[in-house]
Amino acid sequence: MNDKSFILKEICKTVQKARTENPLSPSITNDVTVNFVVNAQLAAGGRGVVVYLADEGEKIASMCKSAYINLGTMKECYAQTIPRTCSAFRKTENKWVFDPVGLGIGSLRTELFKMMKDFKPAVIRGNASEIIGLASLWDLCPAENSGVSGVDSTEEVLSARNAAVALAEYTGGAVAVSGETDLVSNGKTVLLCSGGSSFLPKITGAGCSLGGVMSVYANVAPPFYAALAGTVVYNVAAQKAEKKSKGSGSFMQNFLDCLFNIKEKDILKAKIEEI
Amino acid sequence: MNDKSFILKEICKTVQKARTENPLSPSITNDVTVNFVVNAQLAAGGRGVVVYLADEGEKIASMCKSAYINLGTMKECYAQTIPRTCSAFRKTENKWVFDPVGLGIGSLRTELFKMMKDFKPAVIRGNASEIIGLASLWDLCPAENSGVSGVDSTEEVLSARNAAVALAEYTGGAVAVSGETDLVSNGKTVLLCSGGSSFLPKITGAGCSLGGVMSVYANVAPPFYAALAGTVVYNVAAQKAEKKSKGSGSFMQNFLDCLFNIKEKDILKAKIEEI
Amino acid sequence: MNDKSFILKEICKTVQKARTENPLSPSITNDVTVNFVVNAQLAAGGRGVVVYLADEGEKIASMCKSAYINLGTMKECYAQTIPRTCSAFRKTENKWVFDPVGLGIGSLRTELFKMMKDFKPAVIRGNASEIIGLASLWDLCPAENSGVSGVDSTEEVLSARNAAVALAEYTGGAVAVSGETDLVSNGKTVLLCSGGSSFLPKITGAGCSLGGVMSVYANVAPPFYAALAGTVVYNVAAQKAEKKSKGSGSFMQNFLDCLFNIKEKDILKAKIEEI
Repeated sequence: MNDKSFILKEICKTVQKARTENPLSPSITNDVTVNFVVNAQLAAGGRGVVVYLADEGEKIASMCKSAYINLGTMKECYAQTIPRTCSAFRKTENKWVFDPVGLGIGSLRTELFKMMKDFKPAVIRGNASEIIGLASLWDLCPAENSGVSGVDSTEEVLSARNAAVALAEYTGGAVAVSGETDLVSNGKTVLLCSGGSSFLPKITGAGCSLGGVMSVYANVAPPFYAALAGTVVYNVAAQKAEKKSKGSGSFMQNFLDCLFNIKEKDILKAKIEEI
Repeated sequence: MNDKSFILKEICKTVQKARTENPLSPSITNDVTVNFVVNAQLAAGGRGVVVYLADEGEKIASMCKSAYINLGTMKECYAQTIPRTCSAFRKTENKWVFDPVGLGIGSLRTELFKMMKDFKPAVIRGNASEIIGLASLWDLCPAENSGVSGVDSTEEVLSARNAAVALAEYTGGAVAVSGETDLVSNGKTVLLCSGGSSFLPKITGAGCSLGGVMSVYANVAPPFYAALAGTVVYNVAAQKAEKKSKGSGSFMQNFLDCLFNIKEKDILKAKIEEI
Repeated sequence: MNDKSFILKEICKTVQKARTENPLSPSITNDVTVNFVVNAQLAAGGRGVVVYLADEGEKIASMCKSAYINLGTMKECYAQTIPRTCSAFRKTENKWVFDPVGLGIGSLRTELFKMMKDFKPAVIRGNASEIIGLASLWDLCPAENSGVSGVDSTEEVLSARNAAVALAEYTGGAVAVSGETDLVSNGKTVLLCSGGSSFLPKITGAGCSLGGVMSVYANVAPPFYAALAGTVVYNVAAQKAEKKSKGSGSFMQNFLDCLFNIKEKDILKAKIEEI
């Protein structure tokens, strides 16, 4: 693997490119956090648009280099929209970022998540249990072999290590496991990224919006760097925002401000390590 | 009834228990305020998830001790989802909090609101006109007998007194009427709670999110204390937030911060009185 | 045309009237920005409610003097809801504000946008390309004749001048083109309004919420003054908010605060000019 300094410089380039090119990264995403997702994409330099219907999904999959799918709030129309959108991604070879949120709730969700296996998302982002669950659903890694089980939060993320690597090997893209410490892998290299804030799990949409921002970065960088850039930028911005915040309400606003203003020198100080 | 000091201590216990246990309180709720609802639930120590589809509604009704239903933005799928979810609540004896927002708009809403009568929500929360309307729709209290009609805001809430008591007697749970002063009843005792802020009606989601927070508390306390804890905590947090706010925008953020940081000593000073 | 000072005084009256009368201005609007739309309507003194279903659309069109339609996130039910709601507007002669966002994405959207021509919205608000696109879709002004094409932002808005005038002449209402400088026309007079903030395009919902606020003003003023009042108030509030903001997150909150607190003396200093 390239050394830490090289990686951080690549992340800076990705962040800068998104700000210069303002790429449109459409989403099919959940209603709870949709506003935060698009505002985070804008703060990162991108632009967002959200669709639900099948022909609109096909349109976005063919018109943009990258998009984001998060089925947090399942709708009936997704039974048509998701297969047709995924097919359009495959045809156009545009990239998509997938957040397997809500895994295990409802039959349509399970069916669509299974179906998505054939369409190989460029980036998969979730928490440890979602990544373990998806690798198991896709028959890539049995849940009991996912990694080291444990109680502290680094161990929680490490418990999804094998699942993450298996998913990334299968897709040929990248997988990001979010937690107090984050894990990012392209199937060969596994990196741990730290930083962030204890406020992140106290607001809704931290994970969803990270997926949306990774999709912005996937427009201007390869999947592994898109996943890394999103993860590192969130760690840096959240750490800065926490210092200015008195509660979860002010944290949300400060986080968007810090994401909007993120500096290269702060990214270069971010903590990442290969394991 | 127990004395004021006992009640306030029970509220403190409820608030503390929610923070310690972090209960998951799913919602079927409206799209306008869904983000604020879940952020308020998180600020109160709970966790939220939102579903629309029938089998997902059944799932949440069976997996969580309490949930929240608010049909502010009606969707066609609710014709299936609501009856099946309510049946699952009855079967599992899990509790649900109901916000009868939008009463009188549209035929599906009216039909579902009528149907819900048989399924007895543990807590009903609404403004005076919604509570009066629901008690009338359920043939529990004719609108003209609801209470004292009046122009100032305490009188407005008092105008729903009989309707609130009738609903609570019928369900065996609790009813909260939100206004400048709030009224909470379990069908026997009627309490008035004051505090709050004139900013509350100037933001969208104050009432919806209060229902969501009551659902968090209903996970760890009986319906009457869940309704009281939500009402009192909102009064205290809003009062504190108002002092720091320059407009409705900053109030929203400060309110979440104050909810996040609420102190036992402030709850113990809250104004409640039996009437 | 009346002189600048007369116009600004009319705008002040409109703003004041909305605060005094608190008109209900319902919306059929998109899920991404719906919370911001209703909070902006509340900050401007109005009240909002959001519906999706056909009979609920008919209800709002008949019960309120003005409403807002923005199909940013298309739903299948709109195939029924929009024609029936538009018919109800025509029958009751209540006014509606239309935001043609997403023009060109999906077949249902295109079909509904075409159909709306017969129902003549009182106010149309969009960015230059949306206004040009709509005038072309409605066969009122070919895209190539829309106006002066150019690269800077005033020129961008001017590029939609002929399209805006053609739409306003056709509807007999008003058209607002939003950009760094804004253009408002009633088909005869064309005004340029400046102010605003570079943060406005960095948050989602600036345009959507402006449409919602115009709908509040349309409840208490003729279409041209509703469009002008919304445009000018947004320019003034955004300019003030920018000075207090450190990024897009704080801008959102400060903007709502400034909208909430807007003063007559600031409106009277706003920059408008006839062209």
